[in-house]
Amino acid sequence: MVRWEPDTRERLREAALDLYTAKGYADTTVAEIAASVGVTERTFFRHFADKREVLFNGSDVLQEQFVDGVASAPAGTAFEIVMHAVLSAVTFFPEERRPYSRRRQAMIVANPELMERELNKMAGLVAALGAALRERGVVEPEATLAAESAVTVFRLAFEEWVAPSSTRTLAEIEQSLFAALRSLAR
Amino acid sequence: MVRWEPDTRERLREAALDLYTAKGYADTTVAEIAASVGVTERTFFRHFADKREVLFNGSDVLQEQFVDGVASAPAGTAFEIVMHAVLSAVTFFPEERRPYSRRRQAMIVANPELMERELNKMAGLVAALGAALRERGVVEPEATLAAESAVTVFRLAFEEWVAPSSTRTLAEIEQSLFAALRSLAR
Repeated sequence: MVRWEPDTRERLREAALDLYTAKGYADTTVAEIAASVGVTERTFFRHFADKREVLFNGSDVLQEQFVDGVASAPAGTAFEIVMHAVLSAVTFFPEERRPYSRRRQAMIVANPELMERELNKMAGLVAALGAALRERGVVEPEATLAAESAVTVFRLAFEEWVAPSSTRTLAEIEQSLFAALRSLAR
Repeated sequence: MVRWEPDTRERLREAALDLYTAKGYADTTVAEIAASVGVTERTFFRHFADKREVLFNGSDVLQEQFVDGVASAPAGTAFEIVMHAVLSAVTFFPEERRPYSRRRQAMIVANPELMERELNKMAGLVAALGAALRERGVVEPEATLAAESAVTVFRLAFEEWVAPSSTRTLAEIEQSLFAALRSLAR
């Protein structure tokens, strides 16, 4: 389980988001981000490849959790396996992370360059989930369809979770979307 | 019904794709495309806003067909309505269009700038389908989930249709993907 710890990495993340919000993403430098938490640029680059990656670095961990969730799911249909994977990844988004996630999402939606990276990460998530399902013996096109459906549910649930007035937990939103998807296709 | 006619617009499309393939997308100018079919640049710009749009201009017509397909579908579940919409739009992709579509797809996959536009068009398709479903009284989250599922099926079917060894028609591929999606969620 991955926990949300306010270490140097997290402080850099927060500081970057503060600066992107205040000065604009394009006008913020790595030097400014590093200086604002009292570390060197070199330390920044030990944690992140560039100033775009500072917002996306967590996606690899999230992807791993999705893939692990497929591997550890009890025997079931492809749909049940991806449901298990998506729901087991909610530990990555505890309630105390919601304010950060809200600000991050607003930043991404407002910057085409960031949005493009976000869409690529989602496509990567679909590919990784599809591969993990095939690993478990799910054939095509079921593996890809289940992976696409899972990422759609995750994406829509996440959008609702970061919406200003939202109060339900991510797991609650995901469960209701999976249920709606099931009854839709019936 | 929109038919595939080799008029000036189509000749410009073909010529652009020929040049993008031969010289590379970045190194091709609008002047060259226009000259190669014996028209002026001004004529080019009467048909297309820019050299990127020459590959995407048809998407508006496709989106209209999706939306019309939702409006004209017989009474049914949200899933049945979007199935009807996606299947009624196959008239946009007759067999004689497959060679062009194959070349266009290869070009898009190879150019991040074009891929970004493609992803935006797909997101636009989801939004338009969702709105058309709500217009017919489908509530949320069912409208968005059905729209997302429909575009996923269309996108995966199209990818298979333009694959080098593919022989099934687009409608056949779409029908088998919808059937797989239904049995998956059961």
